[in-house]
Amino acid sequence: MTTTDTAPPSDLRRVAATVAARIETVMRTDLETALADSDPLLVEVLHYTLFNGGKRIRPLLTVLCSRCCGRDDETLYLLATAFEYLHVATLVHDDVIDNAEKRRGQATVAARYGMPAAILVGDWLHARSMHLIGQLAGAEGLKIFCHATASMVNGEFEQLRAIGDSNATQQQYFKVIRQKTGNLIASTCAIGALFAGATTTQRQALATYGDHLGAAFQVVDDLLDFLGDPRTTGKKTGNDFIEGKITLPVLFALSTANAVDRQAIEKLIRGDRTQPEAYNRLHALIEGQNGFNTAAGTAQQLVASAINALAIFSETAQGQENVVLLKELAGYVLARNK
Amino acid sequence: MTTTDTAPPSDLRRVAATVAARIETVMRTDLETALADSDPLLVEVLHYTLFNGGKRIRPLLTVLCSRCCGRDDETLYLLATAFEYLHVATLVHDDVIDNAEKRRGQATVAARYGMPAAILVGDWLHARSMHLIGQLAGAEGLKIFCHATASMVNGEFEQLRAIGDSNATQQQYFKVIRQKTGNLIASTCAIGALFAGATTTQRQALATYGDHLGAAFQVVDDLLDFLGDPRTTGKKTGNDFIEGKITLPVLFALSTANAVDRQAIEKLIRGDRTQPEAYNRLHALIEGQNGFNTAAGTAQQLVASAINALAIFSETAQGQENVVLLKELAGYVLARNK
Repeated sequence: MTTTDTAPPSDLRRVAATVAARIETVMRTDLETALADSDPLLVEVLHYTLFNGGKRIRPLLTVLCSRCCGRDDETLYLLATAFEYLHVATLVHDDVIDNAEKRRGQATVAARYGMPAAILVGDWLHARSMHLIGQLAGAEGLKIFCHATASMVNGEFEQLRAIGDSNATQQQYFKVIRQKTGNLIASTCAIGALFAGATTTQRQALATYGDHLGAAFQVVDDLLDFLGDPRTTGKKTGNDFIEGKITLPVLFALSTANAVDRQAIEKLIRGDRTQPEAYNRLHALIEGQNGFNTAAGTAQQLVASAINALAIFSETAQGQENVVLLKELAGYVLARNK
Repeated sequence: MTTTDTAPPSDLRRVAATVAARIETVMRTDLETALADSDPLLVEVLHYTLFNGGKRIRPLLTVLCSRCCGRDDETLYLLATAFEYLHVATLVHDDVIDNAEKRRGQATVAARYGMPAAILVGDWLHARSMHLIGQLAGAEGLKIFCHATASMVNGEFEQLRAIGDSNATQQQYFKVIRQKTGNLIASTCAIGALFAGATTTQRQALATYGDHLGAAFQVVDDLLDFLGDPRTTGKKTGNDFIEGKITLPVLFALSTANAVDRQAIEKLIRGDRTQPEAYNRLHALIEGQNGFNTAAGTAQQLVASAINALAIFSETAQGQENVVLLKELAGYVLARNK
């Protein structure tokens, strides 16, 4: 957040681009198979939502984690595709839930094709991702995957419950983001490892890496909702506040503010959150408590923990360059600006 | 539709009640395991939507099909539960898509708990059903299951495309109901057979039975939308017409009407379908073309084909009573009034 150098290191950039291109090729072939004789509108909506400049970070994680554990073949890219399908299914349903008009600067599926199409396409992607995981990672992989999905739903419910609640705690916040983001990223990494026939230690290390990385990713996302540049992120700032989500910068500000400022923040949370002035006031109060920097520090700590979890790979010669890439990717999460 | 004796035969009724009770016990235990440490609202919504007097016909089919092929143990009931989860997930998402207020006479999840809860609970049930199928019916079972889900979504898209289209054909209608209902019921039966280690012939026979049964079920559903008693069905008549769905009685009427009546029907379909008079007019025009009786005849034929598919079991002593129950269940589809 504080650096202006937001580009990932060139090695990571090159590998990420190569993997993304390969994933997109595999995805197109898989869609062709899965969508034979399907309704043209279903085909159109799936392509619209799957090929819109996504960074393919989840499949990249699966690929790097499998490579770390010694497997890299054609099937790996199909397995990795399942995580992009699930991710996109989640986004499409989230946009219905949030009534969102835009995603990455373009109309959401719900806005462009209507709510029924969005719900159905999410369900289709959901089923296809489960199918691929079941075929390629077996019952054990599917168990991890479905557990992560169920946990994500539970995280959403806990988040709904905490909406507009100025008594929400940091503990609740971390529990929600672990469930909403951490578990899914952890499953992405763990299933990559499982696919490669990793040892339990390797698999657990990569799951821990993913868990911390996912949490860091979410903290940065919450920061971008205050500090991001809409021209870069493709979305307006202040959405979380308007929706009543109490994110980490707010929680830090609440925890250090004096009684007067604390009451002022609580009043803003309970008041009319759609007023730009309310948002600006909150922004200033968080800044006054150094809440943004504290949250950025938390993201740094989470990334450090993620990298630390990879220590067990340091003595393995095999796939060492992939371990380096995973570390670089974790660092990039901190620097991202969209 | 034409009989007043709507009760299933007593043997079927007894077995259906026993299986339903067993399914509900297994479901409660499974939910307890799966929902440990979950948000109380998620738990509440799941119980609200799963325990509301559902007839548990899908799990009953899985159980009877597995028994026909020689397997009946505790695990079977957990496998069968997956089909109820998927079914309910579909209903919950359908009710969001259709903006439905009531289901079986009580408020839908979306109406009672809001649209976000409905989408999320559908996703949770979806994931849990896939998990159970993957664990208990293996990659092959999951493949059939996910294919049926994807096909259902495709059927919904084809149906959306045909909304208010008075040029829709019977062929399109049957394609849609096969995808929306037939495939899922077929997969329910086929996976029961697969679970029991059935021969390919047995599995195919049961899938064909399910396919025809599902289609018959849908035709009867479409008839009930015109002829059902709201006090029994728990929903108003005429919903399909208001939503612009061109169902079989309408298609039959269109195919036999003279030019004047045909134009009258087309005008009603393209006009303001929310007017009670428009619905009453359409009802009379279909009646005048004998469209309801012709559709009921189609349902009878489909049920006969379903029963016919079971002929291969006639020389197997094993599980013969379950074959009889499957036949009775198919007959009951014709007589049902809700």
